[in-house]
Amino acid sequence: MTSISVSENRSQRPIRLGMVGGGSGAFIGAVHRMASRLDGRFQLVAGALSSSPEKSKLSGSEIGLDPGRSYATFKEMAAREARRKDGIEAVAIVTPNHLHYLAAKEFLKRGVHVICDKPLTSNLSDARKLKLVAEKSGALFILSHNYTGYPLIRQAREMISAGELGRLRIVQVEYAQDWLTDAIEQGDAKGAQWRTDPARSGAGGSTGDIGTHAFNLARFVTGLQLESLSADIDCFVPGRRLDDNAHVLMRFDGGIKGMLWCSQVAPGNENNLRIRVYGDRAGLEWSQEDPNRLWFTPFGETKRLITRGGAGANVAAQRVSRVPAGHPEGYIEAFATIYAEAAIAIDAKRNGMNVDGSSVLPSIDDGLEGVAFIEACVSSSRLNGRWTKLRI
Amino acid sequence: MTSISVSENRSQRPIRLGMVGGGSGAFIGAVHRMASRLDGRFQLVAGALSSSPEKSKLSGSEIGLDPGRSYATFKEMAAREARRKDGIEAVAIVTPNHLHYLAAKEFLKRGVHVICDKPLTSNLSDARKLKLVAEKSGALFILSHNYTGYPLIRQAREMISAGELGRLRIVQVEYAQDWLTDAIEQGDAKGAQWRTDPARSGAGGSTGDIGTHAFNLARFVTGLQLESLSADIDCFVPGRRLDDNAHVLMRFDGGIKGMLWCSQVAPGNENNLRIRVYGDRAGLEWSQEDPNRLWFTPFGETKRLITRGGAGANVAAQRVSRVPAGHPEGYIEAFATIYAEAAIAIDAKRNGMNVDGSSVLPSIDDGLEGVAFIEACVSSSRLNGRWTKLRI
Amino acid sequence: MTSISVSENRSQRPIRLGMVGGGSGAFIGAVHRMASRLDGRFQLVAGALSSSPEKSKLSGSEIGLDPGRSYATFKEMAAREARRKDGIEAVAIVTPNHLHYLAAKEFLKRGVHVICDKPLTSNLSDARKLKLVAEKSGALFILSHNYTGYPLIRQAREMISAGELGRLRIVQVEYAQDWLTDAIEQGDAKGAQWRTDPARSGAGGSTGDIGTHAFNLARFVTGLQLESLSADIDCFVPGRRLDDNAHVLMRFDGGIKGMLWCSQVAPGNENNLRIRVYGDRAGLEWSQEDPNRLWFTPFGETKRLITRGGAGANVAAQRVSRVPAGHPEGYIEAFATIYAEAAIAIDAKRNGMNVDGSSVLPSIDDGLEGVAFIEACVSSSRLNGRWTKLRI
Amino acid sequence: MTSISVSENRSQRPIRLGMVGGGSGAFIGAVHRMASRLDGRFQLVAGALSSSPEKSKLSGSEIGLDPGRSYATFKEMAAREARRKDGIEAVAIVTPNHLHYLAAKEFLKRGVHVICDKPLTSNLSDARKLKLVAEKSGALFILSHNYTGYPLIRQAREMISAGELGRLRIVQVEYAQDWLTDAIEQGDAKGAQWRTDPARSGAGGSTGDIGTHAFNLARFVTGLQLESLSADIDCFVPGRRLDDNAHVLMRFDGGIKGMLWCSQVAPGNENNLRIRVYGDRAGLEWSQEDPNRLWFTPFGETKRLITRGGAGANVAAQRVSRVPAGHPEGYIEAFATIYAEAAIAIDAKRNGMNVDGSSVLPSIDDGLEGVAFIEACVSSSRLNGRWTKLRI
Repeated sequence: MTSISVSENRSQRPIRLGMVGGGSGAFIGAVHRMASRLDGRFQLVAGALSSSPEKSKLSGSEIGLDPGRSYATFKEMAAREARRKDGIEAVAIVTPNHLHYLAAKEFLKRGVHVICDKPLTSNLSDARKLKLVAEKSGALFILSHNYTGYPLIRQAREMISAGELGRLRIVQVEYAQDWLTDAIEQGDAKGAQWRTDPARSGAGGSTGDIGTHAFNLARFVTGLQLESLSADIDCFVPGRRLDDNAHVLMRFDGGIKGMLWCSQVAPGNENNLRIRVYGDRAGLEWSQEDPNRLWFTPFGETKRLITRGGAGANVAAQRVSRVPAGHPEGYIEAFATIYAEAAIAIDAKRNGMNVDGSSVLPSIDDGLEGVAFIEACVSSSRLNGRWTKLRI
Repeated sequence: MTSISVSENRSQRPIRLGMVGGGSGAFIGAVHRMASRLDGRFQLVAGALSSSPEKSKLSGSEIGLDPGRSYATFKEMAAREARRKDGIEAVAIVTPNHLHYLAAKEFLKRGVHVICDKPLTSNLSDARKLKLVAEKSGALFILSHNYTGYPLIRQAREMISAGELGRLRIVQVEYAQDWLTDAIEQGDAKGAQWRTDPARSGAGGSTGDIGTHAFNLARFVTGLQLESLSADIDCFVPGRRLDDNAHVLMRFDGGIKGMLWCSQVAPGNENNLRIRVYGDRAGLEWSQEDPNRLWFTPFGETKRLITRGGAGANVAAQRVSRVPAGHPEGYIEAFATIYAEAAIAIDAKRNGMNVDGSSVLPSIDDGLEGVAFIEACVSSSRLNGRWTKLRI
Repeated sequence: MTSISVSENRSQRPIRLGMVGGGSGAFIGAVHRMASRLDGRFQLVAGALSSSPEKSKLSGSEIGLDPGRSYATFKEMAAREARRKDGIEAVAIVTPNHLHYLAAKEFLKRGVHVICDKPLTSNLSDARKLKLVAEKSGALFILSHNYTGYPLIRQAREMISAGELGRLRIVQVEYAQDWLTDAIEQGDAKGAQWRTDPARSGAGGSTGDIGTHAFNLARFVTGLQLESLSADIDCFVPGRRLDDNAHVLMRFDGGIKGMLWCSQVAPGNENNLRIRVYGDRAGLEWSQEDPNRLWFTPFGETKRLITRGGAGANVAAQRVSRVPAGHPEGYIEAFATIYAEAAIAIDAKRNGMNVDGSSVLPSIDDGLEGVAFIEACVSSSRLNGRWTKLRI
Repeated sequence: MTSISVSENRSQRPIRLGMVGGGSGAFIGAVHRMASRLDGRFQLVAGALSSSPEKSKLSGSEIGLDPGRSYATFKEMAAREARRKDGIEAVAIVTPNHLHYLAAKEFLKRGVHVICDKPLTSNLSDARKLKLVAEKSGALFILSHNYTGYPLIRQAREMISAGELGRLRIVQVEYAQDWLTDAIEQGDAKGAQWRTDPARSGAGGSTGDIGTHAFNLARFVTGLQLESLSADIDCFVPGRRLDDNAHVLMRFDGGIKGMLWCSQVAPGNENNLRIRVYGDRAGLEWSQEDPNRLWFTPFGETKRLITRGGAGANVAAQRVSRVPAGHPEGYIEAFATIYAEAAIAIDAKRNGMNVDGSSVLPSIDDGLEGVAFIEACVSSSRLNGRWTKLRI
């Protein structure tokens, strides 16, 4: 898989895609649709875009779905698409967290590949059950940890894996936002409502919504296994029911140490996901808001700024780049890379080929680990910062 | 038109698109295709992707065109698509400059809308003829001055138009690259070969390839008319036949002054298009390599950093934004905005509605002005910097 | 005191200054001397520049000290200067930590004002004793927490104090360096040798050398009291005897939370002290390596960049600025501000005026707290991160 | 001279310094005083600080000058100091431009070394006369082109001289400010009054005040000789009598081309002096507002950020650095380097040693060239941009 560039579909028949969730006004549904279209590898043909049957239909019509394939519920979609010759081959699940398990199950058991938003589920029990379902199904399960799709994140992972930083020592990762600085969930902000609702979001607020991204990114880039964590989480906004800030210390295998900060109440931070990794020979630094630049700082040498597509970009980065250096790529392109790689994997399946086990695609195991991360943060914090292992 | 958001096609039937040029290995063809796909407003159904009939066919097959609609030449495509009920409604012309006129003419005279790369043509005579053809045709002609599609460029234009900078005084614009630092056209770099060949590129090298973008951006953002220019252009690389660096002084109507620098031999500059505008009340600064941030500096006040999608983003910027603040948008998105607005305009035509004359879409007049800019630079420089007006 | 600008001594007789430590090759001694000279408020007239009597003499000669006032030991200097009519009025103590207490005592008990490097002492017992000595003496004791001298740090403190951030929630502070990435203390790097030697440095390595600066800066800027901390400290370099990296969670009074990271093994970080503070109305961000700029980010408004000396600079910042906006001030200037304010305070003493208790000058209490911070970090880390209060 | 570090005076007796101009409220006088003090190489002992005898005395008293050496006029100071055994050895001239010649002459003819503000004089005739006087005098004449004192400017000069950029092609230099955006000279801003007054400032406004700095910096860094220039200068503020914006094209010997922009009406620019140089092998970029970082961009390689004092700093930079990497140095330090090098040269003179002719110190020839630059800009602009040689 690693030898195929994502940049344009030049060989495969587009994959028929359905979508669960993502109706009118949902930010992330539109992102998934753009990501699926960019490289021409998918064709959205069916949807159950809302938990309200009426809104589902309306939303389907708004985005031009064939009315006959715009379903009232995901159950109906799964059942009826399975009966069509030209039924969907893959489905994107972009609902609130608590529905991921139920929805994914319906499709997986019918052999439909699933691209699912993170966190995997709203609790560990669902996560484990979903893993069993996915394993039983022959279908692929891909978690949309979209930040792993950035070219320079691929570069960083490859550099670390190749030992360019030497033996790792320190990992600093943070993901700060400010959109929940006020109690907007008490107004009509739907995205804020479900994300701060334990019933729909799960045990974690900021830890689940963005902490899992930060944790996953640290894991993806470094390849390190977490040994345990110590967390101090807070809910700063009066009346809020889930954490909106978390301070987490991390111990990785081999004595490597890390810090993770996630916050949704840090004014001035829009989507400030940032990672720094230090080894005994060099450091790396990358920020999602400036994703086309990666600092590489070999100890005792001049600092180097690697640019996406520039002279220092390695094969891992180039494979997922679409335009030359100096033409910024962004969030949608990185998201589209997850879709493109999903498509390449699905196409390999179609052709009876094995999908490479060392795939960079975020998997159900990453999802399970993310849910365990949330629960470990909550648990450690309740126990006044006790060092806690992930229970997977 | 200004009231329709580009962010997702929620109402119109996708436009059937053809492409001239853009075969294997051509960077800009792939960009046009991604841009056309992103918002789901176009469907690429036909192409004459190369000047070589064999390569045309092969390239069409590679990107999955129906073999029956992958044509040997643009003439054949224009003729045969015109006879189909489901023939193309629009065509993207992404060939070297000298073919723009001939190709565009074939489609315009059959009422097919044209989206054409800049500069408009390789000489002023062709540009004038093409303007007559376009005017006679009922079809739209859109020039891909893609940098005008960036949300914060729209923001800047709107702010200046609303007087937020006060009376303008100074415009500094530059577009620096380094890819032609060496004589790579003497190797097998096709993009470099035609861009440095007067027969295919026209009178301008860097002035045509990127100077026209810089000039257009200054015009787009400020709304100012150029009164005259004084240029000192150079060809630094031995053996090169067209300019690779240009220093241009500009006088705009109303006594406003400007400087334009374009270069393709400035090591360390990837695609460094940057504009700064100063009035008697405030300044603005924007750089294409960091397109999600716009500096606004009211005189005597604290500097402000406006972010795409952030609190300071105005309606003009929001209309062409696709994702929330902090999720970077880039080059493809800006390019896609030109496509989306073209689609909205074409759809309005379909429905018999007038396309707004105050449209932000780059037009054939912009193209004519760009060619006149190139020729004025060359002419002024030959006359040792004589102040020269654009001949349009 | 707050009404006197530091920028130039326009009224007082220069203060006669002695120096303990700071001989040939010592970085910080030269800094103290430059800082003392910049504003013309001090005159260096005596020194005991090394713990080796021979080197003391030699170093004194090199910097042009009167040989009769270049002493073999600080004891000798204290005794003999006390007998001169024109003896020193103040002394700068710039030795390794373990000598601070002994040296300071000699001068304080003779009424000589002390400007002393941080951390205050190499252990808490010395720190407490020194506090008693200082209180008994009528002389001033000033700790060189030089980063508090930056104009925009004064600005930040004032803004927070005035409520411009609203109710505080989060404090992120870090101080990263890379100069101890390798075991240079095993070579002939003297600065590294004593800083990694428990006998001379104390219980903390990076926590003492730079962690105390970071902690003090957080305290200075926010005015918050630390309730407790949880630390995970490391010694990554084989053979090193003191920590070279520390991860610290902090709980301040009022439920405010913070993170502190200090490291001397993070390649690419030269002197990267950085603080971010978030309240329910706004955020602030400042970095020592870019000290003339302060980000102020009111929630829901456009980001603002306050520049030193610029339109948004407040009185607290202006009072300690020396040149207009756009002319960068740096490390030496900030250090000189500590000296200038010390001079102003000493001059007030001379004139029998009370020195303002709300002074911004870092005091012996700050020093005591710093030593307690080091010991709390070490202790918490030994107890696997137990939340630990400062013992002062 | 190049082998002596500026960082601290470790060997010479401080030079007795006088000052002409720089009384109460004058920004630049205080800067000269701080610069002269920083390294302990000068002692200010006399002054004629204002053109008003009363204000001279008062200002002298304010900064602690011995009343007997605080003179009413510079003529008196020159005459009376010459009669003292301990008379001044050097004088700093920090008056408005039109007084430079008269003041400098008085001291030079008495063998007193002169450190003089730029531009050298208010007209070319005075400049030439001053050159003759200086040559006849055995004294040194040093122009305070302070920006040449930045360590990374020294680094850049050395790198270019050593061929690290290859054959030069392009020089882009600019110096933008905003403090004259409004007609503040019509109020009581003294600095603005004389700078916009042809009688005191000379033929150039922004060209003289800051354009000369930009031009000198380009010359200093590249070593290139100007062949001719073409200018378009403006006076945007109604009622102003001298240029406040200039756009200049430059042709250097050997076919190298450049652009210079200087402006004092560009809102948001504080003291934005910036230079970029491109050769056929690499580029360099430096900005005065961020002076501790220098971009070095070898063509076809990863970009490198050289930091002051960091791993990539060369000998030329290290010699004029005072503190380790990561501790920012600024404007005062760079200014102090001019003073330190002046002191080293004066001390060599004292000892009968020849002062190296290849000295980096800005000389009277640089001053003459600066005045010629101003007059060429004005003349070229009057002749509608005619390419004009410097008349020296």
